[in-house]
Amino acid sequence: MTAPGLHVFALPGMGEVRPGDDLVALVLATGVELLHGDILVVTSKIVSKAEGRYVQAADREAAITAETVRLVASRTHDGHTMRIVENRLGMVAAAAGVDASNTPDGWVLLLPEDPDRSARALAAGLRAATGAEVGVLLSDTLGRPWREGQTDVAIGGGGVHMVADLRGTTDQAGKVLSVTTPCVADELAAAADLVKGKASGNPVAVVRGRGDLVGPLDLPGASSIVRGADRDLFWLGTAEALDQGYRDGYAAARAELSPPEQKDAT
Amino acid sequence: MTAPGLHVFALPGMGEVRPGDDLVALVLATGVELLHGDILVVTSKIVSKAEGRYVQAADREAAITAETVRLVASRTHDGHTMRIVENRLGMVAAAAGVDASNTPDGWVLLLPEDPDRSARALAAGLRAATGAEVGVLLSDTLGRPWREGQTDVAIGGGGVHMVADLRGTTDQAGKVLSVTTPCVADELAAAADLVKGKASGNPVAVVRGRGDLVGPLDLPGASSIVRGADRDLFWLGTAEALDQGYRDGYAAARAELSPPEQKDAT
Repeated sequence: MTAPGLHVFALPGMGEVRPGDDLVALVLATGVELLHGDILVVTSKIVSKAEGRYVQAADREAAITAETVRLVASRTHDGHTMRIVENRLGMVAAAAGVDASNTPDGWVLLLPEDPDRSARALAAGLRAATGAEVGVLLSDTLGRPWREGQTDVAIGGGGVHMVADLRGTTDQAGKVLSVTTPCVADELAAAADLVKGKASGNPVAVVRGRGDLVGPLDLPGASSIVRGADRDLFWLGTAEALDQGYRDGYAAARAELSPPEQKDAT
Repeated sequence: MTAPGLHVFALPGMGEVRPGDDLVALVLATGVELLHGDILVVTSKIVSKAEGRYVQAADREAAITAETVRLVASRTHDGHTMRIVENRLGMVAAAAGVDASNTPDGWVLLLPEDPDRSARALAAGLRAATGAEVGVLLSDTLGRPWREGQTDVAIGGGGVHMVADLRGTTDQAGKVLSVTTPCVADELAAAADLVKGKASGNPVAVVRGRGDLVGPLDLPGASSIVRGADRDLFWLGTAEALDQGYRDGYAAARAELSPPEQKDAT
């Protein structure tokens, strides 16, 4: 780095990842020299591949259902229904995160079984092998309400602070930044996507220059940045909530207004 | 840069921005040498300051109302109501983007009047002054559903591609990436936030290494990545939609079930 700041670069030559592959060995085989404070952002798909999380494409809809805890919203377009769901990790994601891109023909991939555990294991392995205290994030590509396009976010974390908690610190004018908690993990994943690219086949990037965000392996993982439905203002899609409210309001009015004999009949 | 990839660095020494200030001159006064393809990510707040978009803090709630096109969701906590609204720019944002941090005591700041226009003007000025084809993004900090913390996104753009349209391109396995349109503008804003910081007073960062995303000044701006309510599955908060549905369902059942004489009475 010739100036202070952040340096973000992809690891070329990772090659195709196969079930059972050792990702620590694959990363080190690229010849990258990892430094203290480096943060590796690893496309979660290669972790899924190493973990053998393949499902036959014919079973894709069943796989999405199996990964789904709760339907949040859906839209049918040209006969195809797109489901946005809360998956078993608590994440709200289209198709529960089940992915058909960059997979062999006829197969789809589930998300890693436990992305935080996988990220911690990879960070631990790289720390042991290199002696450098590095952090690891697993990334996935998500759409979002209100804005077009997708961005990469962190779905697993090992040895990296997820959120830079500024509550209680002051701004330049001396005022307390009371509600500002930048989700640095998602910002790191986004920065990494700018050098990995979707089509280029470079599934791992290194972010160098924010070593202050690297810490012990038992730091909270990316599950800590998933907001539970009970604390979210958008826990159900608008159309679904309008429908549910309508049914409830209709039933309440019926119960109030129907004569007793009619009530018995319903 | 000693290796390929992205270099992201803040411009130190920008100083406080005052109404009427020339941002082109302030950026150049830092001594930064801008290169062809550099993307400057400018915290929208300093553009608001240069444009004199101050409103007295006592009028904050009225200012939010004035900037609001439509209430999307609200939550009352400890007697304070937080409003998530669609603002006049189409953006869905808490408090309509009206901001009280990093402002002089007693004042709040509105968003720039037309962030895309401001970004284009800044890009045009920097191109004219330096001869380097640079792009400009204006950034703001937004919360999002389902995930904790905030990330920086692009709310204005001049001479930068907002979305890398991969539709029709193929992945490593030769499959068409049919639905992948990474919002690179938001990813660039996120990357820049990692070097600017909220409390450090470095409101401008340069992202170097994605010159392929820089283009003519008449490229679509950040307004193009705002998704209209008519195409969004979360255009109204869940509680608000449940309430609205309930009222509609209740009224429909009443209309159906009430005897004629009772209908007249309501």
